[in-house]
Amino acid sequence: MNNKIRVGIAGYGNLGRGVESAISQNEDMTLVGVFTRREPVDVQLLSDQVPVHKLDEIESFKDDIDVLILCGGSKNDLPEQGPALAKHFTTVDSYDTHAKIPEYFASVDEVAQAAGTTAIISVGWDPGLFSINRMMGEAILPEGETYTFWGKGLSQGHSDAVRRVDGVKAGVQYTLPAEDAMNRVRNGELPELSTKEKHTRECYVVLEEGASEEQVRETIVTMPDYFADYNTTVNFITEEELRRDHAKMPHGGFVIRSGKTGESTDQVIEFSLKLDSNPEFTSSVLVAYARAAHKLQQKGDTGAKTVYDIAPGLLSPKSPAEIRKELL
Amino acid sequence: MNNKIRVGIAGYGNLGRGVESAISQNEDMTLVGVFTRREPVDVQLLSDQVPVHKLDEIESFKDDIDVLILCGGSKNDLPEQGPALAKHFTTVDSYDTHAKIPEYFASVDEVAQAAGTTAIISVGWDPGLFSINRMMGEAILPEGETYTFWGKGLSQGHSDAVRRVDGVKAGVQYTLPAEDAMNRVRNGELPELSTKEKHTRECYVVLEEGASEEQVRETIVTMPDYFADYNTTVNFITEEELRRDHAKMPHGGFVIRSGKTGESTDQVIEFSLKLDSNPEFTSSVLVAYARAAHKLQQKGDTGAKTVYDIAPGLLSPKSPAEIRKELL
Repeated sequence: MNNKIRVGIAGYGNLGRGVESAISQNEDMTLVGVFTRREPVDVQLLSDQVPVHKLDEIESFKDDIDVLILCGGSKNDLPEQGPALAKHFTTVDSYDTHAKIPEYFASVDEVAQAAGTTAIISVGWDPGLFSINRMMGEAILPEGETYTFWGKGLSQGHSDAVRRVDGVKAGVQYTLPAEDAMNRVRNGELPELSTKEKHTRECYVVLEEGASEEQVRETIVTMPDYFADYNTTVNFITEEELRRDHAKMPHGGFVIRSGKTGESTDQVIEFSLKLDSNPEFTSSVLVAYARAAHKLQQKGDTGAKTVYDIAPGLLSPKSPAEIRKELL
Repeated sequence: MNNKIRVGIAGYGNLGRGVESAISQNEDMTLVGVFTRREPVDVQLLSDQVPVHKLDEIESFKDDIDVLILCGGSKNDLPEQGPALAKHFTTVDSYDTHAKIPEYFASVDEVAQAAGTTAIISVGWDPGLFSINRMMGEAILPEGETYTFWGKGLSQGHSDAVRRVDGVKAGVQYTLPAEDAMNRVRNGELPELSTKEKHTRECYVVLEEGASEEQVRETIVTMPDYFADYNTTVNFITEEELRRDHAKMPHGGFVIRSGKTGESTDQVIEFSLKLDSNPEFTSSVLVAYARAAHKLQQKGDTGAKTVYDIAPGLLSPKSPAEIRKELL
């Protein structure tokens, strides 16, 4: 039997590599090719069984690919690639510039409607799974508040800021949810909390030879915009510790809906992720939604979609009768 | 404007009362009537604006009701009422006899398909929200294990067992998730755990005059099937404390998917509920799915459905464009 879902990958960075790996965990899928703007010979995949092609030749693979997973960035790649590729392929992407989603949705929808393809945009965990939980919490408990906490997660922008400090040789910064704020939310207090009150910051720093711990710490914790308003801790470590303990890209967070029913009964819904690799997890979500995109396209449900439009059962390789029997 | 969704309630116990209350939290809905097998004059609603009718006259309200929420029990009411009412109404119910769901689905589906109604069965939190999370966890992280922990929750059967013990005047029993087991799961250990290893039991007992604490405790913790295999604690309280602190019906629990991506990266997805009233929460979920049932019926998507068939966006009173802009 060979009716596996034939998947292509457009763009091969952390996300593309994660998608390659995730596809190998799903028996109903097969990876037919990776498409790149680089020279194909320069791209080393995890598997040597999968061909690499130039992205600008992708149109000739129209009949070989059921779903194309777009692994480019939201800033420079997807605004152009999303609509361009939806013209020829059913696609899934992780477009994550929250403020521009309506605009991006419209541009992809127009093309996909005309072409009869299905394009699920903004898939991942935020936007993605967190968005689903924010929406469902609000629909189920209309009287209440929704709180999103991020972390523990590596923050690229804040790590860069730490590394620019005089005397810092290398370093990373993690954002953490503030425990006391989370507990207040979980206890149904419905507090008003700014992003700053919800999070703390933790830095791991390797000093330049001869630099002063006190001075570096002071410069970091008082840095305006980045750290001054947060509860920030600075830990000094060796280069070896940095390599050994801080090479991964962990992330995660919490979506908590705290609401009231009846006279004044507290009800709390909580969804959380603890991810040792942010890109690998996002890739796994993309692959599950690729399955849904294929099913929708097969039954003629075309155009741009988001996670809000996808019935959960479409994500499963199992039949509706199987999931009802085994998992309901 | 009066294009509110017109909702009816069939059956008025804890669940029906919760549904009445939940509808009043949703501005796009209006409760048009409650239908009961009791004498309507004997049924006291929360609101005196809503009429109560005999259930066997419900057919004459066909044109007045958009969605009927079935609030009967799974054992005696729904197996008969589910198919009978789906013949005339779009319905939502909380059928929760897990093992018989396929059979119940088939019986409702046949009727609903023929009648052109939509019937969402087995809605609530387990089956319901927990089922969605079990399925999505497995689809997103195919290499891993799913764990469901229940509690802290009042268990009716175990409370009855406690109350049958000689020397016990009154009492309640709570099931709690075992903290150590949960922590092993959250740490990605992928342990094999039986239901007994995942839960502990906590009893609150009012003694009969002159009864021995030691003897009652011993009888409870050694009771076969119910307590002997569990870590059980027994607390002795006064009748007043029982009334004051143990009158609610709290419940909740955790669905944890622990999986691996890439080479061997730990990823953990966790969904949990902390409910001060189990029936009020289940009612709130039913009401959100009633909205979805109505939307599906409106667009001709008829037959029996489960939570797996419902795109999350259908639960919201907001438009697809609004939820994309505000919540994605």
